[in-house]
Amino acid sequence: MINVAVLGYGTIGSGVVEVLQTNAAVIAKRVGEDIAVKYILDLRDFPGNPNADKVVHDYDIIDKDSDIQVVVECMGGVEPAYTFVKKALLNGKSVATSNKELVAKHGAELIAIAREKNINFLFEASVGGGIPIVRPLLRCLTADVIEEVSGILNGTTNYMLTRMGEEGLSFEEALKEAQEKGYAELHPEADVEGYDACRKVAILSSLAFGQQVDFEDIYTEGITKITAEDFCYAAKMKKSIKLLGSSWKTDDKFYAMVCPMLLDNEHPLSGVKDVFNAIFVRGNMVDETMFYGKGAGKLPTASAVAADVIDCAKHIGKNIKILWEPEKLTLSDLGNFERKYFVRMPADTAEETIQNIFGTVEMISVDGIDEKAFITGLMKESAFNAAAEKAGNIINRIRLD
Amino acid sequence: MINVAVLGYGTIGSGVVEVLQTNAAVIAKRVGEDIAVKYILDLRDFPGNPNADKVVHDYDIIDKDSDIQVVVECMGGVEPAYTFVKKALLNGKSVATSNKELVAKHGAELIAIAREKNINFLFEASVGGGIPIVRPLLRCLTADVIEEVSGILNGTTNYMLTRMGEEGLSFEEALKEAQEKGYAELHPEADVEGYDACRKVAILSSLAFGQQVDFEDIYTEGITKITAEDFCYAAKMKKSIKLLGSSWKTDDKFYAMVCPMLLDNEHPLSGVKDVFNAIFVRGNMVDETMFYGKGAGKLPTASAVAADVIDCAKHIGKNIKILWEPEKLTLSDLGNFERKYFVRMPADTAEETIQNIFGTVEMISVDGIDEKAFITGLMKESAFNAAAEKAGNIINRIRLD
Repeated sequence: MINVAVLGYGTIGSGVVEVLQTNAAVIAKRVGEDIAVKYILDLRDFPGNPNADKVVHDYDIIDKDSDIQVVVECMGGVEPAYTFVKKALLNGKSVATSNKELVAKHGAELIAIAREKNINFLFEASVGGGIPIVRPLLRCLTADVIEEVSGILNGTTNYMLTRMGEEGLSFEEALKEAQEKGYAELHPEADVEGYDACRKVAILSSLAFGQQVDFEDIYTEGITKITAEDFCYAAKMKKSIKLLGSSWKTDDKFYAMVCPMLLDNEHPLSGVKDVFNAIFVRGNMVDETMFYGKGAGKLPTASAVAADVIDCAKHIGKNIKILWEPEKLTLSDLGNFERKYFVRMPADTAEETIQNIFGTVEMISVDGIDEKAFITGLMKESAFNAAAEKAGNIINRIRLD
Repeated sequence: MINVAVLGYGTIGSGVVEVLQTNAAVIAKRVGEDIAVKYILDLRDFPGNPNADKVVHDYDIIDKDSDIQVVVECMGGVEPAYTFVKKALLNGKSVATSNKELVAKHGAELIAIAREKNINFLFEASVGGGIPIVRPLLRCLTADVIEEVSGILNGTTNYMLTRMGEEGLSFEEALKEAQEKGYAELHPEADVEGYDACRKVAILSSLAFGQQVDFEDIYTEGITKITAEDFCYAAKMKKSIKLLGSSWKTDDKFYAMVCPMLLDNEHPLSGVKDVFNAIFVRGNMVDETMFYGKGAGKLPTASAVAADVIDCAKHIGKNIKILWEPEKLTLSDLGNFERKYFVRMPADTAEETIQNIFGTVEMISVDGIDEKAFITGLMKESAFNAAAEKAGNIINRIRLD
């Protein structure tokens, strides 16, 4: 019997308990012994809940109980999650967490402690919810040098962009709808400004490249400037607009960013709609692979946490090696990276002026929108920014993937 | 140092050697020691090849060399692969294979031998080429009861169907093009009749449900009857036609089949084009997930085999548990399964006759095709077959997913 303590009985925490209890028989078969939830740590009580008798309010009870071999952390936020998780690991208890803030900030340290203690710190659910992506990166694509990881990592914004693209909603209308459906929070900054996706890119990049990538170093641009008009142009160009979190490697330079991108409709990420997430991985041997599924939601996310609990249970006394060294990886200046840009300018801008500033461009026009819009040639981001400043009156610009 | 022997130096075998040698440094870091190819078994010699000195023609040399800890089998076909692999396992050597015929037929037995010997028999590349799917089923979605596994499992037919859908090619034209591009063989039956997909469904079903599913028991229908006209109707219905290999579970009944299906354009498998493969997995907790990538090709497939070699190397003396029991799983009669059907009949068929035979239907018409075409309501396959026999002059029928 493996005893588990769950920290935080919110959406994900209660989901983990539900998964472990509902699928107890099949899980026991896979692990070779039963997994039981012994404690649930929460500030609240849950009278009437079938697990009410497991609720404790003091972490020390869990800390001191040597029966507990696996701690599940679903509190979210850095503190007190960090303190509890570190204590658990130092006391020889494995940890499974869904907490992207914790993993992005302290992942390297917690992995190192787990390695030293011969236990495990696992975090499949911190990126992509129910989608297996951490394990595939660490344990499936092991024969490859990973060259790129790009993904639709935030379901809220993907839902909004899908609705804007399909129904012509404005950003505000899409946000309101997402809030009404419970996909977006009242204070939606973490989603719409790309902060959530940024933490996830930091985790994916650290795993893909094997070294700490600080989320503060990742250029992050949200979707607040995307308009219904942008989607009219996107449709004309047979492209979609997606909030992508990306990191990639070219000639031993590493880049990472979060921003809206125009993707060809043929791109596998282009068809990922609504609250679904997908992560595209390119390796030097396997070429393109993609992992798709529910990036959020109670049971899908809990399924991923529970799979980590199962892995902890199957690896008692054996550390699963995770290459994520604490030395910080220096990201290269995006200014040096070349790509094309889609640009919208006022109708009275002369095409000659545009070409003088941006070089040869491809003009795009859409019925009913009186503007000058175009796609530039390949430009370094620094050169594009200089040109945009010179032009002065750009309505919007979106990067092309 | 882990010494490896590669059986078969064809496309995949030489690819495995290339992956292990090209990515040797990163692989050594992940494993914790070097992996070296010591022997290559092939009937041929490869003068001038940098690995020519490793070539042997007699399996006994490998069998008797106790330095060899991992055997890579890329010969294809059941014999002599089965004899060599079984010998290797009985002699305590782990095996990684890309051979779907071998795994579909003898998987349960070889897994049991590996378990008993505390070594490993791994076969990630036998389904989906480079796409991680065996590991995700066995080691990622471990908290779920798997309810469905459906996939585009054959790149050749997916290429042909893509070309028929996008360019209006006939089956014959698409096959000719696929042959010219090297995607289809001169004798293309294994692909176009669905036999290849059938072996892969057998493997996926055995893994998903934990018991032997015999490929001979799986209803298999290829794409040879699909015509350019079918694609005209599909476009009108906003659907695509895909060769799906599926297995699923409803109320403790298990079903498996391979056949062309009409999928809504919104279905995640619908956008999978050309030679790409994708496998859709539904669990009772994680809901929908999908794994996408290159289902064939030298380096993608070799990447998956090499990842298995790495797993064997990381688990010397430790068996990775695979639940695939030898007791045969009885598949339920597809005749009892309800679905809708798309049906084409001659233009002179009276709609009244159609409704008398098939019940209430939805008529579909396409400019330029003088036929009576329709979608039935939900019908048991046995009832549909009886109706189709009664109608007598059906031009074609395709199942709806």
